This record gives sequence, C-alpha cells and structure tokens, in this order.
Amino acid sequence: MSHKKIGKQTVYLESMPSIIATYSIVGPKEGQGPLKEYFDCILQNDKNGKESFEKAESSMLYSAITESIKKAGLKEEDIDYLLAGDLLNQLTSSSYAARDIDIPFIGLYGACSTMTESLGIASILMDGGFARYAVAATSSHFAAAERQFRFPLEFGSQRPPMAQWTVTGAGAMVLGPEGNFPYITYVTTGKVKDYGIKDANNMGAAMAPAAVDTIKQHFIDTGRTVEDYDLIATGDLGKIGKQLTLELLNEYGYDIGEKYIDCGDEIFDAELQNTKSGGSGCGCSAVVDCGYIYKNMLNGRFKKVLLVSTGALMSPTSSMQGESIPGIAHAVAIEF
Amino acid sequence: MSHKKIGKQTVYLESMPSIIATYSIVGPKEGQGPLKEYFDCILQNDKNGKESFEKAESSMLYSAITESIKKAGLKEEDIDYLLAGDLLNQLTSSSYAARDIDIPFIGLYGACSTMTESLGIASILMDGGFARYAVAATSSHFAAAERQFRFPLEFGSQRPPMAQWTVTGAGAMVLGPEGNFPYITYVTTGKVKDYGIKDANNMGAAMAPAAVDTIKQHFIDTGRTVEDYDLIATGDLGKIGKQLTLELLNEYGYDIGEKYIDCGDEIFDAELQNTKSGGSGCGCSAVVDCGYIYKNMLNGRFKKVLLVSTGALMSPTSSMQGESIPGIAHAVAIEF
Repeated sequence: MSHKKIGKQTVYLESMPSIIATYSIVGPKEGQGPLKEYFDCILQNDKNGKESFEKAESSMLYSAITESIKKAGLKEEDIDYLLAGDLLNQLTSSSYAARDIDIPFIGLYGACSTMTESLGIASILMDGGFARYAVAATSSHFAAAERQFRFPLEFGSQRPPMAQWTVTGAGAMVLGPEGNFPYITYVTTGKVKDYGIKDANNMGAAMAPAAVDTIKQHFIDTGRTVEDYDLIATGDLGKIGKQLTLELLNEYGYDIGEKYIDCGDEIFDAELQNTKSGGSGCGCSAVVDCGYIYKNMLNGRFKKVLLVSTGALMSPTSSMQGESIPGIAHAVAIEF
Repeated sequence: MSHKKIGKQTVYLESMPSIIATYSIVGPKEGQGPLKEYFDCILQNDKNGKESFEKAESSMLYSAITESIKKAGLKEEDIDYLLAGDLLNQLTSSSYAARDIDIPFIGLYGACSTMTESLGIASILMDGGFARYAVAATSSHFAAAERQFRFPLEFGSQRPPMAQWTVTGAGAMVLGPEGNFPYITYVTTGKVKDYGIKDANNMGAAMAPAAVDTIKQHFIDTGRTVEDYDLIATGDLGKIGKQLTLELLNEYGYDIGEKYIDCGDEIFDAELQNTKSGGSGCGCSAVVDCGYIYKNMLNGRFKKVLLVSTGALMSPTSSMQGESIPGIAHAVAIEF
C-alpha cells in the first residue's frame, strides 16, 4: 500500500485530477450581488417553478449537476461517482436530485463545508484510480434553511448584526483526467473544533477556529506558506468570522491578509442588500468557487488557490439542548 | 491514473485492507434479542446516563469509535480518517462524538446504509494509499429516531404490522494494513432508486429495490454468483423488505435464498419482542455486522460475506410534501 499522506491531515494527489467543468446557479438576490457576472444561471424566482422551497433547492442542485456534466461534454453514464450533500434534514435536496440521476451516489454531510468535502473525496477517488470522472456538488436555499434552522419567513424575526444570509444557490464541479484545466494537488481534511460558541446567530465565530486549524495544518503538512497562494478563500465565515480567522492565524504567525477572501463576505453587498455579516450555506462557497474563483483561474487571474469551505455542525435540537456549535473546515489546493 | 473500476459500479481493492477490530454497543432491548452474545457492550439504560436520547446516542457512538481503536491496539493519533454518520438531523450524534475525537472527520449521510457507505469509502482510502488506518462508524437510537421521524414516545402511537423498530446501537470498524483479519475485496456503490412507495411505515418496501439493484449489479460487475458467498446480509429491510428482495432478485435469475439474511430480521425476536417487521436504523446493520457477522468470520463460520446496508432517504418534510421514499444500498465484500 503506497502512502500518499503528507503530514498529519493532508494527502498529495500526484495524478493532479482536473476540474474540467463547473456550473453555478443562484437565486435572484445573489444574482444582484457583486459576483453576478460569474454565475451560469440566475433564477428569476427563488421557487424555480416548484411548489416548495425544498423542491426548488433540489431542482437547482439537479440543474447544477446535469448542466456541469453537459458542459464537460459528458453523459451521466461517463461519471463514476456523484458526491453531494446539503443543509436540509436527511439531505433532502441531494437525495431527491440523485434519484433522477443515473450515477452511483455518495451522500455527505459537512454543513457548509460540503463543497470542499465533496471535492476533496472526489479528487481522492480520482487520484486512487477508482474513478475516471466524478462530480462534486452542493446546494442551499435561503427560505428552506430559514424555516428549518430558525423561523418560518412569515414570522418576520429580526436579524442581529452578526447574522448571516443563507445563499440560494447550487454548484457542481466535474473532475476528469484531462490536462489544461485547473487541477487539485492537496486535500487537507479537517477535525471537528468547538470553542464553546452557543449563539446560532453567530456562526462565523463558531466556524473560525476550524478554519484556522485546517489552514494552519495545511501549511505545516505541505511546507507551503501564504506566499505560495494567490488566493485563500474560506467558505462562509462572513465579516465577523473572517476577522477572527485573520486574528487567530496572526497569533500562529501566519499573515494571510492580502491573499484572503471569504466567500460569504464577497457574494453580497452587505449594505445595499442588508445581509449583515454576509452570506452562508453550502451554496455560498459552492457558487463562489464554481463561478468567481474557477472562472478567474481559467482566465489566469488566480494561479494557486486554497479553498477552505467551513461548516457549523449544530442542529436545532442540539442548540435547544444547550449544546455549543462545533465547526469543521476542509481545504483543497487548486493550481493552473 | 490506474483504473480499479470493475464494471459499472464496483471497485476491486487489490491491497485487501483488513478489518482489524470492531466494537458494538447496544441498548437493553437489543441486549435481550437473539444476537445478544455477540455485542461488546449492552447498556442497562438506554439514556446511558445522559440527559437526552440524542446525547445518549452520541455517547454510544463515541464509545464504539474509541473502544474499537483500543481493541485494535491503536491510539487516536494513529488513525488517518474517521468516517461516520447517523440518522439525526445534521448528523448530531457523529458531529458531537467527533468533537471529542482528535481524528480528521468525514461526515456521511446515507440513512441506514451508512455502515457500508462509511466502510466502503474507508476501504477505498486505505487501498488508494491515502490512509494507513481508518475508522468507519455509525449509530441510531430508538427514542431519538421516533421523535424525530414519527411521534414523541409519550404520544403512544400504534404501530402497523409492517413498521420496524429503530435499533439502539452503535458500531465501529477499524481498518488497517495488517494481515490475518477479514479483508475487503470489492465495494459496489449504489444508485438512488425510487419505486414510488410513500408509506413511511413501510420502509422495507421502499428500500428493497435499491438492495436488489446493488446486489444484481455487484454480481454483474464482479462476475461472482450467489455460490461465491456464504452469507449475503442486507441492512434493515425487515421481514417484508427481505421477502420482496428475494422475489425481485428471483425475477432477475438470482436465488439468494439459502445465503440470505437481513440484519433487521435477525436482531430481534419479532414475536417475543413485539418488533413487527424487524429492526431498522443505521445501528442495525452496524451492530450485526460488527458483532454477529465479524465474530463469525473470525471463528471461521463465514468465509465470504457480502454486506449490503440499505437506506431510506426521505425526510419528514419530503413526506409531508407528498414525496415518495427513495432508497439506496451499498455493498462491501469481505473475505477471510
């Protein structure tokens, strides 16, 4: 058994599996934000013609998966594995999307870390020779998430300043052996970190320690430094979690300031769009990674990127039972 | 990139990763059932000293993981990946168990298919050289599942004859490179199958088509036949789903009758224990696989076994919105 582990939490993918296509689809609000030009599809209505928000989310994820496969010039039968997950209980969006897609399915749950969780495992399946093509995908929907995790929209609850806005969106990436596309070199799998935050309206703070731990471990495992990357993009820490991540990494001696963005901080114009601390949800890093970041890698603006999607692993039940919020973050290094 | 894919949905693991230890822990009711002698720990109280059923489930999963690592003579720092999932919303049991375990964590959701989903991916990580040791684990809890998926126990709802009884239990398997243990040869990843069953009290019927599809595809991909196995064990189809699986496979020309058990059919004495169609839940195939099957492989009774855990992928929300119940099944072949 050869050993591809580098350091404690990272594997090196010597075959460099490529991201040969991506597809991103967002709701109307995301389509009015600063990254609108990078999305493949902007819905005119966030129900997408379906009778419920949950069915709308599932239909978006279905579109992202099937359209990404088309963009890659492939058919469902060419794809060895579909890896997907979402925020809805029992992965409703992913399971019902996968029902209509004829590909072996691996369901994942990492809350909003799902884009790099699915991408990381898909790349590992590719590099190990277990797949020739694989799709990694995830989604979230503002209205479906609000009523599951917080309150029904009709309740009209007020949002505190550190609250985030769940992104309505789905993203999918197709991995293949082809060259001349951005390719994956390292996957750093995160550990669950819990610093005792209990405020479900401040998830950026709950997830920041996990992001810090995974980024730090990625540098230690690979011997890379901040200078090795053009861009380090966390998933959905929002403004508050981003600031905490910067400060905590500084304490460990890593100043990522000039290379660092947070997808949740980028996707909305917080003042114009009243999104408080920023975007969140699995769909947040999915559509920013599949849209803004991937397209800017293709055009040469970014050459080495570290994607670090971040997940808050609490449930409404665990919160009601007085538990704090554990976080997790997985990092995937992409180069072109 | 070498290609380890055999047929359409199966990979062959030439390095033969071994299951070097397992640990199973069950509730009092399971500890009175026909398989009681095979479990490592039987709880005297299904709250396990915790203040909620959810926390009790998480504590059982934590015990299964940490005790399996001890049985393997290893420490947490030796394990490269922990792969786990459960039935509770947002993987509450797994996330909170993983919080206290210092191992990179991959969260999975496959409903009751999670034992073979986690075992399958863990074996692939081992075979690809990405891990030297990995742990695959899952859990379920009768009372936590009842109140999440059906009604609070205090409601006292009646159970129809085709209903199943969620197993209170957790199981964990440690994979390692050592020889002289049962080892994994094939992993067949399932597709989502939905034949339109809408009755959440008849999940055996909802999952049977997925079990049939995966078993049939396993035979086609590997060229193996029923005769190649001593035992084919589905996860938690119960009496009704088991009968359907037998009949449907017969229509495809496979008579698995003499080799076939269903973990949900085995774990309880349906008449004495009033469990209707049988056991269910992620913990069902987990504790039967980790207990009865693994221990009977070690003592030479079973030499070639096909584990096929089965999951029903609906959510209470999707059921209330009129959706049918999609199913999935993943198969892992183990030999000794």
